[in-house]
Amino acid sequence: MRKLYGYYRSQAAFRVRIALNLKGLEREDAYLNLARGDQFKPDYRAVNPQMVVPTLVDGDAVLFQSMAILEYLEEVYPEPPLLPSGAAARARVRGIAQIVVSDCHPLVIPRIRNYFDNVLKLDEAPRVGWIQHWLVTGSQALETILAESPQTGRFCHGDAAPSIADICVTTHVAGAKTHGCDMGQFPTLTRIFETCMAIPAFAAAHPSKQPDRE
Amino acid sequence: MRKLYGYYRSQAAFRVRIALNLKGLEREDAYLNLARGDQFKPDYRAVNPQMVVPTLVDGDAVLFQSMAILEYLEEVYPEPPLLPSGAAARARVRGIAQIVVSDCHPLVIPRIRNYFDNVLKLDEAPRVGWIQHWLVTGSQALETILAESPQTGRFCHGDAAPSIADICVTTHVAGAKTHGCDMGQFPTLTRIFETCMAIPAFAAAHPSKQPDRE
Repeated sequence: MRKLYGYYRSQAAFRVRIALNLKGLEREDAYLNLARGDQFKPDYRAVNPQMVVPTLVDGDAVLFQSMAILEYLEEVYPEPPLLPSGAAARARVRGIAQIVVSDCHPLVIPRIRNYFDNVLKLDEAPRVGWIQHWLVTGSQALETILAESPQTGRFCHGDAAPSIADICVTTHVAGAKTHGCDMGQFPTLTRIFETCMAIPAFAAAHPSKQPDRE
Repeated sequence: MRKLYGYYRSQAAFRVRIALNLKGLEREDAYLNLARGDQFKPDYRAVNPQMVVPTLVDGDAVLFQSMAILEYLEEVYPEPPLLPSGAAARARVRGIAQIVVSDCHPLVIPRIRNYFDNVLKLDEAPRVGWIQHWLVTGSQALETILAESPQTGRFCHGDAAPSIADICVTTHVAGAKTHGCDMGQFPTLTRIFETCMAIPAFAAAHPSKQPDRE
């Protein structure tokens, strides 16, 4: 039994959907509406004490945090690989992924936006400004790293196949577009996003294709 | 040649120092004063286009993002291991680490505090409230996950040896103490922090022991 607890808008759940699709792994989906607070219900808290998505249940394993889930899938279902061979190449791919996962996404998630509204009591303009600032700042770093490196190819690393870095960059660009960032200023990110979104495993995982979309 | 670009107060550099010490790997240290803006100088931007610490140079490899660096060290210098055996156990360790690296630390770093001061123009009280809120929220998740699991032992995972999870939890607790959080409400985190800080590889990596401390 394999079951993914997610939400159509969650970038982190989007990452896991792409990886499962690329590896050809079937799943059952459980949809939580984060805007309605489904993640705080006791039955989900028993699955994921952090009360965030995604959680992937794979047989006996209950897996949390998207990067840990991607690494698990890579170890247990190695084909097709989502990491290149060679420790330095793998570090580059993981580093690009972590810029998204650590330095961009955590700053724009719903609980941050709720804190701006409910605790800081700021208007929409500073909240939108904050979100766009961190998405653009992270995009600048990613664009520079990717555009300046001869290791970048059709994908973030080489021409052969998408990696964990492409999964994270694609979900990042999709999120930045949703939040109204001008991504035209980042041609390498845009090119990689479009290359990946032409792959059915990515396209089918997009938020707009999920049954719980609003 | 192995060279670590860091800053005594950086939680992420602290993580890499611990891992290098545990694996018995010598290094040269380069100290950047993030408060003074050393990370934005052109010679460092050429090393790390994101202009953040840490960067580890290991021979020909230029490595960025602390989690990617820890995974690289584990692959290239596997002894002593910093991940347990078994994919599900490794996912648990990585998941605990990512709660720190993705969901706590990015919300309290200097560039966030600068944005509060310089763009949002908020007073000290909401800034301190923000920092403590996210460090305590993350600590609650970590405490629950660790306290409720039979897999937790002396360390985050078992009794035998510290893992990447312990490295991240220790740096998290140290940071939370610096920011004035009451960590007495998290007995499991406190116990693991004290267990780890009694190990010389952890103690020598603490910010208070670095030559660039202020």
